[in-house]
Amino acid sequence: MKRWLIRNGYFVTMEESRPVFQGWMAVEGTLIADLGEGEPSAEALESSDEVFDGRGLLFLPGLINTHGHAAMSLLRGFADDLVLQDWLQNYMWPMEAKFSGEDVYWGSALAAAEMIKSGTTTFLDMYDHMNRVGEVAAKSGLRAVLTRGVIGLCSEEVQKAKLQDAISFAKDWHGAADGRITAMMSPHAPYTCPPDYILKFVEAAHELDLPIHTHMSETQAEVEQNIRDYGVRPAMHLDRLGVFSRPAIVAHAVHLTDEEIALLADRGVAVSHNPVSNLKLASGVARVPEMLEAGVTVSLGTDSVASNNNLDLFEEIRMAALLHKGVTGNPTVVPAGEALRMGTVYGARAVGLEGKTGVLKPGMKADFIAVSTDKPHFVPRTDYVSHLVYAASGADVKHVWADGRQLLRDGELLTLDEEQIRFEAQACYERLRG
Amino acid sequence: MKRWLIRNGYFVTMEESRPVFQGWMAVEGTLIADLGEGEPSAEALESSDEVFDGRGLLFLPGLINTHGHAAMSLLRGFADDLVLQDWLQNYMWPMEAKFSGEDVYWGSALAAAEMIKSGTTTFLDMYDHMNRVGEVAAKSGLRAVLTRGVIGLCSEEVQKAKLQDAISFAKDWHGAADGRITAMMSPHAPYTCPPDYILKFVEAAHELDLPIHTHMSETQAEVEQNIRDYGVRPAMHLDRLGVFSRPAIVAHAVHLTDEEIALLADRGVAVSHNPVSNLKLASGVARVPEMLEAGVTVSLGTDSVASNNNLDLFEEIRMAALLHKGVTGNPTVVPAGEALRMGTVYGARAVGLEGKTGVLKPGMKADFIAVSTDKPHFVPRTDYVSHLVYAASGADVKHVWADGRQLLRDGELLTLDEEQIRFEAQACYERLRG
Repeated sequence: MKRWLIRNGYFVTMEESRPVFQGWMAVEGTLIADLGEGEPSAEALESSDEVFDGRGLLFLPGLINTHGHAAMSLLRGFADDLVLQDWLQNYMWPMEAKFSGEDVYWGSALAAAEMIKSGTTTFLDMYDHMNRVGEVAAKSGLRAVLTRGVIGLCSEEVQKAKLQDAISFAKDWHGAADGRITAMMSPHAPYTCPPDYILKFVEAAHELDLPIHTHMSETQAEVEQNIRDYGVRPAMHLDRLGVFSRPAIVAHAVHLTDEEIALLADRGVAVSHNPVSNLKLASGVARVPEMLEAGVTVSLGTDSVASNNNLDLFEEIRMAALLHKGVTGNPTVVPAGEALRMGTVYGARAVGLEGKTGVLKPGMKADFIAVSTDKPHFVPRTDYVSHLVYAASGADVKHVWADGRQLLRDGELLTLDEEQIRFEAQACYERLRG
Repeated sequence: MKRWLIRNGYFVTMEESRPVFQGWMAVEGTLIADLGEGEPSAEALESSDEVFDGRGLLFLPGLINTHGHAAMSLLRGFADDLVLQDWLQNYMWPMEAKFSGEDVYWGSALAAAEMIKSGTTTFLDMYDHMNRVGEVAAKSGLRAVLTRGVIGLCSEEVQKAKLQDAISFAKDWHGAADGRITAMMSPHAPYTCPPDYILKFVEAAHELDLPIHTHMSETQAEVEQNIRDYGVRPAMHLDRLGVFSRPAIVAHAVHLTDEEIALLADRGVAVSHNPVSNLKLASGVARVPEMLEAGVTVSLGTDSVASNNNLDLFEEIRMAALLHKGVTGNPTVVPAGEALRMGTVYGARAVGLEGKTGVLKPGMKADFIAVSTDKPHFVPRTDYVSHLVYAASGADVKHVWADGRQLLRDGELLTLDEEQIRFEAQACYERLRG
């Protein structure tokens, strides 16, 4: 098994005991073997097949995007600045209805290319034609948490077929690509799935021993509808249906009461906070400081490019650190270190990969990125965590490794053909426009 | 005079009559000579000394940063996530008190390097040791609006000396560097300058025929203090003192009543909206949709790197487009085109350069940038204005021209020595830390 070593780098580990230092890190196969301050020992150097010079680079765990719909990258810039129902009914849904497996493949490949280039090594994706997303994940080298998102506003027959599709996909892909791919079960949202249908997903999740991912309380309107239809707010509704008896991650969670926050904390439900999408669609501002205070695991997601409009997780990290200060009037909430944890270690915890990724320490998967610090916006060298959160962007990412394999070298993709992807994605878009 | 031509490019002109097209643009000396769709005429090609291939590039006016303190780039990451008074009294002011002219020079040079690399061609700067900022502006090739910001909480003698310094600087530098540098008069803020001292700046501004720049209503606390001390809110206070009898631009303007917004509109006072800084310092969210609706010229500023922590104006543009949607609950406010105007044409208007910069059309100064679109986040080619606002960043800027001169080529600075600047800025910071 190949063993190699990085020296002369700065490391932001996300470990509390040793957060930032200048030093070295050894990788063996798919795992981080060891790391330490200063110079590696002569023995460590001798036992390495290769030594990588980390000068001018800052190494940190690969970022974790905990909510998205990769294929929708085909709709970047197609419709912006519209009222939600107009946007959905007249732009998104008609286009998405036309998506073939081929469109999903190239849209997801476009997303994978963008994610790797901007430093994401793990992404959660909820969509349709998920076999094609699985192919992209396998080929790209990314770590992926994949789930067939199912809308249940249809006949019982179609409901059954969709549930079966979700189950088959999860069985086929959970543990695929040397374990890089894991699966979840996803009823799309409380307002798009009748309660008895959600119950079937909970049952399947128990049988398959998988977590559940769903949208929850993105808009005030859907919360009000939930109260009208079921007499309770969405978190209590999902809890009653047993969704939180599984490990669960809910996307958005913008409109929550104190009671709902306490319930999520009590049940160990993680949240995927999508600040840019929530602003762009005017959904509102999630109560992130209160959730963190209550002990809820808050991770970060981009949502799809149609409401973002990029997949640069550095932006979500920065937005999480900025937005809640301004809205609460308290400049000490979501400090830089906490925002970076939301994009790394909390992300891993949220998608069931705690102890595998999101932290640089021995025994963890070698999922990490190198950011170039030879740029004006990294000067002076005061606090690299601050610089990563408040000054950096995905464009500063120079190299990326996932599962011990290099996916990006000097800004160039190694596992995907970027030029082909851009060409095919453009062609898909033009076909969809007709 | 050298005449050269760009062909095969996409152009985002910020002109209403012809906003986006594929075509060509001719530059003669410091000015845009002509531009048009499709191919240039044989005559236009023949009369050009040089032809530049614009394939894969999107050309737009250079961005305009209408509020900042460039030298404070030396304090990037020095202190974050603190309560305002703690941050100011225990971190910013003690360090700034130690700034020498040399520190201001290298701090401003660091800022100039970062601004050029991220697509800004005009910046407004308010600080001390302004001769050194003037030197940086002259050398860098940037267009600059410079002003000695004066705090008047001192003896009458010191007040006099500072006012004299501000007047001398304005006289020496207004129109310098082939007209690239213009000056303003700047009492720092209503809460840091007694009324009779502000009056002296108004008088000087009239004598020198210069605009006035000041901070206004950044925090709720300073508004309350203004009411306690002077019986009126800051906009009425400044109006009474004659500040708005001059062309004026106020920075921040976060806490405004309807009456104040109407007053700014009536007096033609421009606002520099600094959304990232306002969030980071927890100052609040300015009422930008209402100001735009009332006809106030709203431009964009980064404020200093100490509260941002970078000078990428693309981020301010995106933040302006996102934030106000989320906070007002209306996804149609500050649409992409309006946000881009805030960073270009409204910026020019705000700093007294309307008709000179901020738009690509014949007779305007050749201040423009080229963004590389051969990247995943520019695919598909749906709407380049949307992509610039919602997907791009300063890192996509490949070439920059100001006053007809190229300042950045393939991401490399042509007028400044980036490596030296990074080295010297680091050294300044270390000396300041002692």
